[in-house]
Amino acid sequence: MCELLGMSANVPTDICFSLTGLVQRGGKTGPHKDGWGIAFYEGKGLRVFHDPEPGVESKIAAFVQTLPIKSEIVISHIRKANRGKVDLKNTHPFIREFWGSYWTFAHNGQFKGIKKESLGDFQPVGSTDSEFAFCWLLGKLKKKFHSPPKKETELFQAVEGYMSELHQKGVSNLLLSDSKNLYTFCSTKLSWITRKSPFGKARLVDADLSVDFRKVTTPGDIVTVIATQPLTSNEEWTVCKPGEFSVWRKGKIVFSNR
Amino acid sequence: MCELLGMSANVPTDICFSLTGLVQRGGKTGPHKDGWGIAFYEGKGLRVFHDPEPGVESKIAAFVQTLPIKSEIVISHIRKANRGKVDLKNTHPFIREFWGSYWTFAHNGQFKGIKKESLGDFQPVGSTDSEFAFCWLLGKLKKKFHSPPKKETELFQAVEGYMSELHQKGVSNLLLSDSKNLYTFCSTKLSWITRKSPFGKARLVDADLSVDFRKVTTPGDIVTVIATQPLTSNEEWTVCKPGEFSVWRKGKIVFSNR
Repeated sequence: MCELLGMSANVPTDICFSLTGLVQRGGKTGPHKDGWGIAFYEGKGLRVFHDPEPGVESKIAAFVQTLPIKSEIVISHIRKANRGKVDLKNTHPFIREFWGSYWTFAHNGQFKGIKKESLGDFQPVGSTDSEFAFCWLLGKLKKKFHSPPKKETELFQAVEGYMSELHQKGVSNLLLSDSKNLYTFCSTKLSWITRKSPFGKARLVDADLSVDFRKVTTPGDIVTVIATQPLTSNEEWTVCKPGEFSVWRKGKIVFSNR
Repeated sequence: MCELLGMSANVPTDICFSLTGLVQRGGKTGPHKDGWGIAFYEGKGLRVFHDPEPGVESKIAAFVQTLPIKSEIVISHIRKANRGKVDLKNTHPFIREFWGSYWTFAHNGQFKGIKKESLGDFQPVGSTDSEFAFCWLLGKLKKKFHSPPKKETELFQAVEGYMSELHQKGVSNLLLSDSKNLYTFCSTKLSWITRKSPFGKARLVDADLSVDFRKVTTPGDIVTVIATQPLTSNEEWTVCKPGEFSVWRKGKIVFSNR
């Protein structure tokens, strides 16, 4: 199993605080020591860091925490290998260009029999069931829609349908982004918190670190953080129900089956 | 215009020395201050760093030079924007999954009328003519070959043909990799050097830095470095002729039109 971290914000926002909590689980407060990765969207551009080292020991992870990267969408993952060996090519998040945008995908869980499914235009590079599932999902979307549907809801419903199919095949907590939206699917565990004015203080569960969001935000900021397990101990996280699917944009839900 | 750096080696090799020379041209010894990027292959896995900051000022570039990343194939690029604004999404090398491998592409030059060409399955995310050309080339390959041809020479000849077509459309110094081979095309400027036993010392053109390769190699190592302009002042680089196309594997040429 693995741990996921996602962010959707209405202004480019620094994820360092949450990331610091997450990487502790990569070998220190958690057993997820088989690599980690993060994707930061800056508009349609994408900045990614992948490392097969444990998050807590990774020089790259330590460095990324010092970078002032601000992003509206972030997807991060720390890995405990179960399918596919510890290897750079098996490190999430996975990335593909689709419809002229970079799509990224990270998965917590494990599928049964996914590799028996036939794939479309997208092929896995590594050996994980997660990357296979991502390729399967994009292939399905490409086959269903020749180009991005004019009605966004059609796209959202299609993604929901394919993610529900994956959920039938095993544990399938998912983060997906198309550079505009962040799609989240809860199979067994996913929680989120939306921070907005009036901002307060937050304290990490996994490290002795607090932040006063009043000092690093402006009144209009809306920032949602999504994780497999709550990252802070003094805030109220909303726990998703199994089967719950949401689409987030600029920190808010724009579509959901809740 | 931009600067390119490529490496092909028969053992995972550290590119730090050459990279240090290259990034000086990103704002110090050269005007290529509109971003930089590097892709390191580790087997089929890919580690990439992109930054729209000038190479010489980039915190990420400084950090990457300290990392002990060893790779058999590297493609790096520092950018002087002419087509497409300074933006993360316009930063080379560009990446696409194709036939279950990550393909990377970097370009020095400028094309006329390339965007009038029709594209296949691959679409650009940014606005550069370079990324458009990469998508065009992959689309052509995908259309020509349903799957990777059994005879590698057929693939090499096809790539050569498409790169020659690009050369007809403007300045087209190119580096391309499919994770197994490094393809190089010289339109106006490209030079290479193969280092092997007996190794000697090398001194950078762009920075006061020397390295004694005897201390960091073993006798069987074969390492070829390719750049738009020679990076060292005391070694003999081979200057490619316009139209010259080569395919490198493990430091050696496996196909060429020389």
